[in-house]
Amino acid sequence: MAAKKASIELSTLGTEAKDRALSAMAEALDANRSEILSANAEDLSAGEELVRSGEISESMFKRLRIDDSKIDGMIAGIRDVMSLTDPVGEIMSALDLDDGLTLYQIRCPIGMLGVIFESRPDVVPQVMSLCLKSGNAVAFKGGREAANSIRVLFRILRDAVSSAGVPEEAFVLMESRSDIDSILGLHDYIDLLIPRGSNEFVRYIQGHTKIPVLGHAAGICHVYVDDAADLDMACDIALDSKVQYPAVCNAAETLIVNSAVAGSFLPRIVSLYRENGVEVRADEAARVIVPDAVPATDEDWDTEYGDLVISIHVVGSMHEAIGFINAHGSHHTDAIVTNDKSHAAVFAGMVDSADVFVNASTRFADGYRYGKGAEVGISTNKIHSRGPVGMEGLMIYKYVLVGNGQVVKDYVGKECRQFKHTPSSIPYPYGGE
Amino acid sequence: MAAKKASIELSTLGTEAKDRALSAMAEALDANRSEILSANAEDLSAGEELVRSGEISESMFKRLRIDDSKIDGMIAGIRDVMSLTDPVGEIMSALDLDDGLTLYQIRCPIGMLGVIFESRPDVVPQVMSLCLKSGNAVAFKGGREAANSIRVLFRILRDAVSSAGVPEEAFVLMESRSDIDSILGLHDYIDLLIPRGSNEFVRYIQGHTKIPVLGHAAGICHVYVDDAADLDMACDIALDSKVQYPAVCNAAETLIVNSAVAGSFLPRIVSLYRENGVEVRADEAARVIVPDAVPATDEDWDTEYGDLVISIHVVGSMHEAIGFINAHGSHHTDAIVTNDKSHAAVFAGMVDSADVFVNASTRFADGYRYGKGAEVGISTNKIHSRGPVGMEGLMIYKYVLVGNGQVVKDYVGKECRQFKHTPSSIPYPYGGE
Repeated sequence: MAAKKASIELSTLGTEAKDRALSAMAEALDANRSEILSANAEDLSAGEELVRSGEISESMFKRLRIDDSKIDGMIAGIRDVMSLTDPVGEIMSALDLDDGLTLYQIRCPIGMLGVIFESRPDVVPQVMSLCLKSGNAVAFKGGREAANSIRVLFRILRDAVSSAGVPEEAFVLMESRSDIDSILGLHDYIDLLIPRGSNEFVRYIQGHTKIPVLGHAAGICHVYVDDAADLDMACDIALDSKVQYPAVCNAAETLIVNSAVAGSFLPRIVSLYRENGVEVRADEAARVIVPDAVPATDEDWDTEYGDLVISIHVVGSMHEAIGFINAHGSHHTDAIVTNDKSHAAVFAGMVDSADVFVNASTRFADGYRYGKGAEVGISTNKIHSRGPVGMEGLMIYKYVLVGNGQVVKDYVGKECRQFKHTPSSIPYPYGGE
Repeated sequence: MAAKKASIELSTLGTEAKDRALSAMAEALDANRSEILSANAEDLSAGEELVRSGEISESMFKRLRIDDSKIDGMIAGIRDVMSLTDPVGEIMSALDLDDGLTLYQIRCPIGMLGVIFESRPDVVPQVMSLCLKSGNAVAFKGGREAANSIRVLFRILRDAVSSAGVPEEAFVLMESRSDIDSILGLHDYIDLLIPRGSNEFVRYIQGHTKIPVLGHAAGICHVYVDDAADLDMACDIALDSKVQYPAVCNAAETLIVNSAVAGSFLPRIVSLYRENGVEVRADEAARVIVPDAVPATDEDWDTEYGDLVISIHVVGSMHEAIGFINAHGSHHTDAIVTNDKSHAAVFAGMVDSADVFVNASTRFADGYRYGKGAEVGISTNKIHSRGPVGMEGLMIYKYVLVGNGQVVKDYVGKECRQFKHTPSSIPYPYGGE
């Protein structure tokens, strides 16, 4: 694959060359607005049919639309990526193994990424700019419903980077087959897959490839209101976590309440939820206090509503809450409301989730709010990257050992040379231009 | 699975409690030598049969044997792990998102590891001590040929950690089925698989599981002798990389020589190789200079001999060498011998391998030589961990956000609160005891 080869060239490009290409990308989008909009118009008119026939949802259709302000957003996104620090070549550690034998751990791109996405054409400029800045090659596979928009955006952007001297082979658009299985089988070429789409979409990809997948297939998040909670604060957090944007993965699905405060807290929060149009489902213990709530079934504890619905579970202790979260959650984001520092410490230690919050809304779990500048995705993986992932998730490292002729036989056997293993003050000799 | 639950408890154990359990492990091995040796004797006598019938190799049989000095080694290994810094709870970053809203990135264990290994019973104490110190639970699946030794070692060690107050459920030995497929299907429980065995063994595991696998299935390493090489140094490095221990993954399989120095270098190195019993296979260009070398076939460039055999390839330029290495190597360890700094810089940048060496033997690619104290394995993965992996490869992180009631709705819309995203000086409130 030519892209794999081009990825090596891309990995050694200097910051200036990459920023020049990013600038060319932004300018090219601005200069070709009418072409982009007319390609998108084709997708939209075909999309109306697809909505009518039920092949795509209304929300997918909505995400398909490009207008001038969307193009402004793409351009601003590319300029944001330009302003990020170039991570390539960072010296992560330097260790003198012996005199004149220094081991450097150097940050470098992963290599070749695969990005599979539904409908949203703005994934192309966003991901392409992130990959360029981080020195990664990328193969795109987009949804059929956005084919024209994606094709035009991709061509404009690839021509722009090419004109700026970046090897265009590093960027590939896969169109040949309509299904996504073509990209899922490329484990000899693609080092990491990044899916962008619904939970079902991500789950399908995770189940059908040997390539590592960065992402999450569910966002079942909890708010636990402790016996030591400030109940005003608990109302604010439980409400915001549910209603501020219920469709997204970091919204809360289940509210867990300590029985010691259930009597005073539940009537307040349930009335707040109702004022905000939230359907309340509750277990038996909660329904003793709020009897008009819908009875929750076992299925509720494992459901991501993604909507104005909440399930409420009452527990006898914080440890019970932690066990419930670890068993039913998706290891995404879970919050405790408490004024007891030792409770917070145990909760932070034992909840096995990417994001564990103390006295804050689950909705803060997000790359932009975490100050990452750009978000690659939110991962519930237990290796490589976890939680909101920025450009750092597209990086790995290599070890470069710099010697002057050392051989291992001198370090083996009786009276051999001993390793020093001391932090090195010798600058990496191959950095910069 | 009880082990998954116990892994949460294990992840929160203090350093002192873990070191106490490690000490108990070391003492238990010392106190139960005769039981270990007699269990091993059973495996050895059955193993002799297996060697005769060809079911296991001589070298597997050799690795099976435990004697008193092997037990000394196990005990010393456990004490080495005790002396490693506890990585759990390290604050990797701290960022003030706003006043009173601080985001901490905290090092934590991955959770539940699966370790699959052939013959070598000393994997049990080594891996169990590393997992205990790093707070990870572990399921073992060992080779049938070592079943008695493994069972006894495992019981002694688990009883020891249990007596020291560590939840014994965190350590599991899987014996119920003789094949390894039972563990490969546990992707809902096991977060990372670590295979220990032959290349074929690792390749089988990589091909039959959805669980991430840390390791490498091949070690096709190169030494490239540049036109700007010191040829005395090149002889030392090319020889050591091949003969110092030819059976291991970081030994060189192919020597690449720049045509500008082939005439003077090849006769010298080939004669050195012959003195050391190395069979030399060479391409046409090399055989013009060393005509009595065996002609190399295409297959040679993709073969890990693991033995006293070397293939020699002549190139016209360093870029040709880099292309050859990236195409035929296993992305493990590759070395250049050169006195030209700009050549070294390009080679270090463009060779897509975990370990890239300048003027040093490929045999240095090893966790102990890298100062890691203990080696989990050598990885050619492009995500999570690459190259020699120490205890850091068993770790991930979680984000802990500490607030005082913040909700996202206050950070959305016109005239909303702005994020600060400044490095925090507020210590993590839930650290230590």
